[in-house]
Formats: sequence, structure tokens, C-alpha cells
Amino acid sequence: MENFNYYNPVKIVFGKGTIGQIDKLIEPDAKVLLTYGGGSIKTNGVYKQVIGALKGRKVVEFGGIEPNPSIETCGKAVELGRREKVNFVLAVGGGSVIDGSKFIAAAIPFKNKNLWQIIEKGSGVIKSALPIGVVLTLPATGSEMNNISVMSRNATLEKKAFRSEYSYPKFSILDPETTYSLDRRQLRNGLVDAFVHVCEQYATKNSNAHLQDRHAEGIFKTLVQIAPVVMSGKKDYDTRATFMWCATQALNGLTACGTIGDWSTHGIGHVLTAFFGLAHAESIAVVLPAVWKYELSSKTNKLAMLAENVWGIKKGSKKQKAAAAIEQTVKFFHSVGMPTKLSNYDITKKDITKVIARFKQTGLVLGENHDIGAKAVEKILKICL
Amino acid sequence: MENFNYYNPVKIVFGKGTIGQIDKLIEPDAKVLLTYGGGSIKTNGVYKQVIGALKGRKVVEFGGIEPNPSIETCGKAVELGRREKVNFVLAVGGGSVIDGSKFIAAAIPFKNKNLWQIIEKGSGVIKSALPIGVVLTLPATGSEMNNISVMSRNATLEKKAFRSEYSYPKFSILDPETTYSLDRRQLRNGLVDAFVHVCEQYATKNSNAHLQDRHAEGIFKTLVQIAPVVMSGKKDYDTRATFMWCATQALNGLTACGTIGDWSTHGIGHVLTAFFGLAHAESIAVVLPAVWKYELSSKTNKLAMLAENVWGIKKGSKKQKAAAAIEQTVKFFHSVGMPTKLSNYDITKKDITKVIARFKQTGLVLGENHDIGAKAVEKILKICL
Repeated sequence: MENFNYYNPVKIVFGKGTIGQIDKLIEPDAKVLLTYGGGSIKTNGVYKQVIGALKGRKVVEFGGIEPNPSIETCGKAVELGRREKVNFVLAVGGGSVIDGSKFIAAAIPFKNKNLWQIIEKGSGVIKSALPIGVVLTLPATGSEMNNISVMSRNATLEKKAFRSEYSYPKFSILDPETTYSLDRRQLRNGLVDAFVHVCEQYATKNSNAHLQDRHAEGIFKTLVQIAPVVMSGKKDYDTRATFMWCATQALNGLTACGTIGDWSTHGIGHVLTAFFGLAHAESIAVVLPAVWKYELSSKTNKLAMLAENVWGIKKGSKKQKAAAAIEQTVKFFHSVGMPTKLSNYDITKKDITKVIARFKQTGLVLGENHDIGAKAVEKILKICL
Repeated sequence: MENFNYYNPVKIVFGKGTIGQIDKLIEPDAKVLLTYGGGSIKTNGVYKQVIGALKGRKVVEFGGIEPNPSIETCGKAVELGRREKVNFVLAVGGGSVIDGSKFIAAAIPFKNKNLWQIIEKGSGVIKSALPIGVVLTLPATGSEMNNISVMSRNATLEKKAFRSEYSYPKFSILDPETTYSLDRRQLRNGLVDAFVHVCEQYATKNSNAHLQDRHAEGIFKTLVQIAPVVMSGKKDYDTRATFMWCATQALNGLTACGTIGDWSTHGIGHVLTAFFGLAHAESIAVVLPAVWKYELSSKTNKLAMLAENVWGIKKGSKKQKAAAAIEQTVKFFHSVGMPTKLSNYDITKKDITKVIARFKQTGLVLGENHDIGAKAVEKILKICL
């Protein structure tokens, strides 16, 4: 097992009817910047519950944070927040709203005019942030229980992650009933996003981190177990609660303890999203199987373990099991209606040249073996076609 | 799934050679009360590493915190700490040292002369505490990553738990190499203690908390997997690291999320320890199988799940599986050399009358169904004989 640090001070308030607890979690004299996305919270009743719980507090609203939140959009929230002298950011939505709000909270007190530095340099330049609270409405990214944010810059077609010790939410309220109004595409994306987060931490080198492996397998098995009921659209509380908690646990740092992460699927997926507009989950569902095929020999041990302990494949050599694990994972993605090829999005061999060029330009090298540079990305993307 | 809150701000520093990080984790001008147990840290090299890492800081030592730490002993540390005006408590040892130190840290600034109130009233009266740091040397109780402390009062033969929001360690350093000097009895007790902690949270009502169930089963399976190597005494790093992390995860609040705990085994075990001096793990290894037999009908679902997912028992009715789960658990305890009957400690039917009398006197009612009062305790203890 590798040495590790684990620290996660996010206060989780989980369950039905918990949104009202905002009143106890935010100071009575706070001036709140309330952030949200496309406005679905106004039709599904969440907005009303949040405003009710905020009681007499001063509230400034900023809606319209888009999927893959951009510095262009969130920069406007920063201006608003500064002008109105808010001292608390309350994010109501899914991972994009939360990520955008982490950026906003760090940017409001940021001294430098170039806000992209926050994303590029992260904890190196972030010296403070406004406190953030979260009301989660979409289980997927795990942003509600970590200090990570992924931001985009539309002007340069970039998508990058930053993290800082000031970016943990003070609290996150997870009411599974808020997910009842999600559509099939959102549910599918959430399931795949959570699943791939665990893959990035599990299907790497074998660090003999036995408990973390079992915990990761627990998340995999649970997602696979609940996926049919989730995708049926049934308002089954325990299923939705389990889904929400799986997505949170998938990226709250626990399964990463003592292991070496891969994250090349995310690194390549981010560029696909930036160039072609694929949803995050769509991009990683395409890239993951290809990365696994490309890295099959170094990932054989863990993929064979995945085959045995999650997909129940007990026969065959380790290599055969590893190959079967990839196949079963792809089948699982298909079972929730998630495509796994670039051709499903009409992206061609010609299109991917600009992705490869981006990797050549940045010189970024990814993967647990630090061997996925531009050349490897080219080979991986060809598998994705 | 039940509604729940989860909050755990303990900073975990895990791995070999990490004790030196104390220097970065405690303020340079802190005056430290260094607490420890019987002095084994002076022979196994841990003390030297701790003192080295504390560099020029002022240090006041208090050794001799006993297993099942008493208010009598720890009260002396409170006097010392007040006299010396310490402002940090550094606990170096296992669960007893940490529990005692949580009490000491809360008691030093406590205004009331009656320190037992801290234990009796917990968060109702604890309004502050000195910051606590931990160097863990014995995987067992999980106290390094929670806000719980179990204290004893020798004068009245009482043993009770308290918790408070001020009792989370600021940091806990977990260096698995510190466990190399543990003897077989300590290793056995640690394995059983961690195992039973998970039992108390898992083998209760079925709350459809699927991920938490898988996480609990992951801890069970991992403990069962590593137990033979642990008990062999081999200095196998990954095994000891896994053992340490299992014990921490067994009681850091995660497996309790969304479920209803039992804790009657602990409640009865504490009284056995107070009256007869059984080690904590010894007491709960005796009580657990008896509680499960007594509550078999209400625990059938979860015990059958334990049988299937941990012990690999796929045949038979739910009732048969539940019975087999108890049998296998007892076998596991025996496999690490842990007795499971009161007669193994020469405790007789006559002796247990005072335990029953204690429950009659306090009126305490335990268990997830709130049905284990004095009468049930009597029946359970008879099964333990």
C-alpha cells in the first residue's frame, strides 16, 4: 500500500426533507449568492424549498451555470458577488453548478485580474475562498464531497481541473427525492460518471490496498445492481438514495487512499468535451474501454480482479478475465443506453487530429505509468473510433 | 435508507515513516502533554521518533494510561496538564490511550469539579477541549478517526462512552510499522474488536443501505483474509497496513450511515469488563454470538446476508443461513485464538447475577429494537456461559 493523506471535512446532511436544514447551517446574517443551472430547480420544487429555508437572509441569485461550467459565465457571477458583497455561496444543482461555485467562491476574493490562474495554478495561488454550501440535485460527479472543480474556457476550448484546501463545501445536503425529476439522459450520465470515477482509482497498479479494492468493488456492484431500477425512472426512494451515496463515495477520496490513480480517461475525455461538446459522461464512456485495451498488459491484474469480484467471471486466464472485464463494462454502459464509440457522435478519424495536436502542444503525459502522451493518445483515440 | 448526518474532519496521515510529520502538524510554540500507556513505546522506537519530531517544543509527559482508561488515572493527567498549562494533547498508543486523551483534553478546560459529568453528559456539557493529535500503535478501536471515548470509573465499576464535537483528533498518524512489536493477544483483540464494530452496524434491521452493506462486507472479508498472516506475527507491511486501515474504517461513521445500530453487545460487554476485568475484545467476542442467537428472528435478513456475502454460504433457507453466519463468526474468533464463552474465564451463573442487577438498577435498554433490558440481558448471559 502507498502512503497517503486523507482529509475530508465536508458535513453531509442526507435524506428526505433535509433541505430545510439550510437554516441551521448558514449564519443568520449571511449574504448569500445562490447559484444554479438551467432553472429546473424552479419547476421541481427545490428552489422553493431553498428560499423557504434561507428565511430572512439577503439572497442574490445567479442562474444559468451551464454543463461544463465556463469561466466566461462564472466570471459574471464573480462580478455580481463582488458588487453585492456576498459572503456565502450556495450551489443548488449538480456537479457543474458545484464546480462553477467552487470557482466563484475562490475568485471573489482573488487579487489577480487573470482568473484563469485559479484553474491553472490551483492551490498554488488560492489563498482563501468564500464558504460554500451545496444542495445536490444530480448524483454524478462527487463534487459535493471533495475539493475538486473542473472548469472550461470557451475562448480557448480548454477544460481543466483545479483543487484547493479552501474548496471543500462546508456542508452538502443530499436529498434523494430531488432526483425524481431527472430525465433518462441525466440518470445514465450520472451512473456512468460515478462508475468511471471508481475505475480511474481501481484499475491501475495493484497496491495490495485490499480494503480500498473491496470498497471500490462495493460501489461498482451497487451501481450495477441499482442501474435497471434507476433507468426505469421509478421513484424508488432507497434506489435513488443508494445512487446518490454511491456517486458521492465514488470521488470523496476514500477509494484513492493508498493507491495510484490513472485519470488518463478523464484527461482525454476533457479534450473531447472541449472540442466536440460531448457530455462529460459520454466522453469518458468512449475513452475508458480504449485506455484499458491500450494498457491491457499493465492493468491485467486489476482488470482480472474486476472480472472476478464484480462481473463474477471465475474461469479463464488472468488475461482472458481482463479482456472479459472490459467487455462486461462496455455491456454495462450499453445497458443504460450509453454509447461507447466516437462514431456514435459522428466524430471521424480526421476530427481527432486536433485532439492529438492539443496533446502535442501541451506535452501532457497521463496515466499511472506516466506513459500516455500524444502518441499514446493517438492510438487510444483510434480504438475509440 | 434512514436519514443521516456524516461529518469527520480528522486528518489521516498514513504510511511508513510518517511519524516525523508531527513537526508540520503541531504549532511550533505548542506546549504538549504527551500521553501514553504502559511504556512499550519506549522499547519499540516509537517514543524516540515522536520526541525527535516534536523538536524544540515544550513537552510534559504522562505515561501509564491503562487498558480501559480510568477517570482515576486520567484525572491525574488533567491536574498535570492544568498545572503545566499545556495547550495540546498528543496521544501515542492504542484505543485506551486515545480515549483517555480525549477525556483529558475535554477535562482540562472543564469548569465543573465533577469530571465524571463529561462521561455521563457528553456533548451536553463539553463546550471546548484542547486539540488532540494521535500516533496510533494498535489497530483496534477506531478511536483515531472518531469523536467517541469510552472511560471507566474504578470506584463504582462503571464503563461508559461519551462523544462530543470537540473530541475529534486534529490529526492521526497511522504508521503500520509501529504494529510490528504487538504480541499475539493484542493482534487477536484488535482483529476481533474491528470485526465486532462492523457487526454492531451491519447485523441489525435491513435499511436497504446497499452501499454501506457492501462496505461493511468489504471490511469483514478483508479482516478474514488477513487474519492468518496477522496472527502469524509476520512483519508483512501490506497486511499490517490493511489491518490498520480496516480497524479505522470499522468505526469512523461510514458504515453507520443510513442504518440503525445495535450496540447491545458493547453495552453488555462494558459491564463484563467493569466487573470481571475481561479485555474489551474478549467481552464482546463472548456477547456477540449470544445477542445474535437471542435476536435471531429480527436479525435473520442481515445475518443471512452476512452468510451469503462474507462466509460464502449459498445453500439453505434464510433462517439456516443466519444460524450458519453465527457459527462461522464464532469459528473465525476461535481461528485467531479468541474464546467465546464466559466459562473460558471461569465466570459462572452465580457471577452474572451482579451484571443483571446492574441493568436492573440503571434501567438501560439496548439494541436496534430497544428490547434488550435486564430480562433480555439475563437470557443473553445464560447463552454466554
